[in-house]
Amino acid sequence: MGNAQTGVAGSAPAALDRYREMVQRELRETFPPSDLALYRMLRYHLGWVDQDDRPTAQGGGKGLRPTLCILACEMAGGKATAALPCAAALELVHSFSLIHDDVQDGDTERHHRPTVWVVWGQAQAIGAGNAMRALADRAVLRLAERGVDLSTALEASAALTTRCLEMIEGQYLDLALEETTEVTVEGYLDLVGRKTGALIDAAMHLGALVATADGSLATSLGRCGRLLGMAFQVQDDILGIWGDAQATGKPTGADIRRRKKSFPAVHALQHARGRDGKALHSIYGRQGPTEEDVEIVLGIMERLGTRGQSQDLAHTLYRQAMRCLDRLTLASGPLREFQEVASFLVTRQY
Amino acid sequence: MGNAQTGVAGSAPAALDRYREMVQRELRETFPPSDLALYRMLRYHLGWVDQDDRPTAQGGGKGLRPTLCILACEMAGGKATAALPCAAALELVHSFSLIHDDVQDGDTERHHRPTVWVVWGQAQAIGAGNAMRALADRAVLRLAERGVDLSTALEASAALTTRCLEMIEGQYLDLALEETTEVTVEGYLDLVGRKTGALIDAAMHLGALVATADGSLATSLGRCGRLLGMAFQVQDDILGIWGDAQATGKPTGADIRRRKKSFPAVHALQHARGRDGKALHSIYGRQGPTEEDVEIVLGIMERLGTRGQSQDLAHTLYRQAMRCLDRLTLASGPLREFQEVASFLVTRQY
Repeated sequence: MGNAQTGVAGSAPAALDRYREMVQRELRETFPPSDLALYRMLRYHLGWVDQDDRPTAQGGGKGLRPTLCILACEMAGGKATAALPCAAALELVHSFSLIHDDVQDGDTERHHRPTVWVVWGQAQAIGAGNAMRALADRAVLRLAERGVDLSTALEASAALTTRCLEMIEGQYLDLALEETTEVTVEGYLDLVGRKTGALIDAAMHLGALVATADGSLATSLGRCGRLLGMAFQVQDDILGIWGDAQATGKPTGADIRRRKKSFPAVHALQHARGRDGKALHSIYGRQGPTEEDVEIVLGIMERLGTRGQSQDLAHTLYRQAMRCLDRLTLASGPLREFQEVASFLVTRQY
Repeated sequence: MGNAQTGVAGSAPAALDRYREMVQRELRETFPPSDLALYRMLRYHLGWVDQDDRPTAQGGGKGLRPTLCILACEMAGGKATAALPCAAALELVHSFSLIHDDVQDGDTERHHRPTVWVVWGQAQAIGAGNAMRALADRAVLRLAERGVDLSTALEASAALTTRCLEMIEGQYLDLALEETTEVTVEGYLDLVGRKTGALIDAAMHLGALVATADGSLATSLGRCGRLLGMAFQVQDDILGIWGDAQATGKPTGADIRRRKKSFPAVHALQHARGRDGKALHSIYGRQGPTEEDVEIVLGIMERLGTRGQSQDLAHTLYRQAMRCLDRLTLASGPLREFQEVASFLVTRQY
């Protein structure tokens, strides 16, 4: 992170930094007091240490899910500290899914560093992901210790479990789609609703839940999170093809090389006709596209206006997300901060 | 199962069959109403369907953990039905660990059928395991719906989480030990205490927890389960080398071929001297032992009395387990049944 982000237009809202320290502290406290080398892999993935377990200067991702969790809590009238167990759990579930995704997809780099499986092998990386998932359960169980009433703690646990299972379903669908070029926009939206949307739903749902007994408010904020997560994913898909290599850490066309069924691919596959359609299905239907193939796909997407269509979809989903907040009574300060974060998510260039 | 077991000396106690149907029903009810093909892999692993999702005649493993969970509940004065959510959760956590273990160890067969990763590939098998784990969380959350008080439900959830993490630590250690021939008996006991013991601890701990508010009783039964689990594992290790191929479904010496650091290997590596010691370290230190190597190892173990030492350890652990029950007030009928199951576990030949 760091360097790549400095000076890029639309820099990250302050909220993404404000809670970082308290979330990191909460995360560290969910680790058991164990010197087992298993936990090295987890600390490495979280960006706290290097491969040899030496502390790194600054680590971790954007912390998007914890931030949204805390902001949802504050919007619903709660205090940031009340949401911390959920915020940590969300970050841990997200980390679990990334460690396993990297194994499943064979991805070798994340945040400019080798992925866990590249350093420790696939077998141990599977276990590292599983341990991260178990720590998430530990984190959410801390709710009861913070004076949250027991039925709310159980409800939060159930809500997280349901959405975690949805996320796993989404990853299943994503892998299943690798085998086909017959993907519809509806199929894509169903997939990203589960794979990315469900956990951001959980972040906002759980955040609101610990602040208020109003279940319908939590549900509405969760729905807002789900749509925002989908918008975020479409923006991610855009950056995966047209993103600035220096800012994103991925070369232009990266997702074409991986034949990922991201929204631009789905759009192009659905709309390309004649020679373009044939070329596209052929490239997405076979292993290992060449650099020439990547150029061909970029050309077809250019002719179809795929980039603009993708941006339109991201904004449509973003507006739908924001409409979920209409008629809700929310604390105005946190609401404004949330709106800043939400807007950043669909305009960010990294 | 079935055929291989019929007529083998020391046939399974009735308790292992009695609860099968109610546990299976509970397991089915934890599945979400989804027609996603993801769940096929789970049904297949549980033995309910074949690779093409067609129902099979009879499926599933011994159901050891659910049985011990229910018996612990009954010993502590509770009703079997109260323990069902925990019993199902234990079976699901166990299944999750098996699906992932098979990927991690590259094992291609289980219960005489291809493992999940062999049928659907490694990437999808990782997801299938993760889904199984999420279903376990769903299962245990059903406690609250059964009138178990909320604080007990949360305590059960926390106890399961802790022991599940221990199990993951055990699998980490097991994989880490593959790289070395320097394994001590203490190291082995630490490993199996986590890898096998922790979940059987959980089974009995959770079973007792839903029956009684007496936390110390639950802890004692849990400790009994942990030691019994370790005894069970040593017996499993014995069968992995000297088991009858027809009964176990594995050829004699199977664990030698895999260079598994099971107890017999640890014992032999620690006690072999001179030429035997050199041969053993050489065979366990390099890839792919030949059939001649297997014979050499069997010969060394014969000279060292490794089989008898392994049986002694299994019985020592078994007696330690039984001693945990001294001075506890337990329902006598279920206690007798538990004793039958426990004794079967360290004498079974399959």
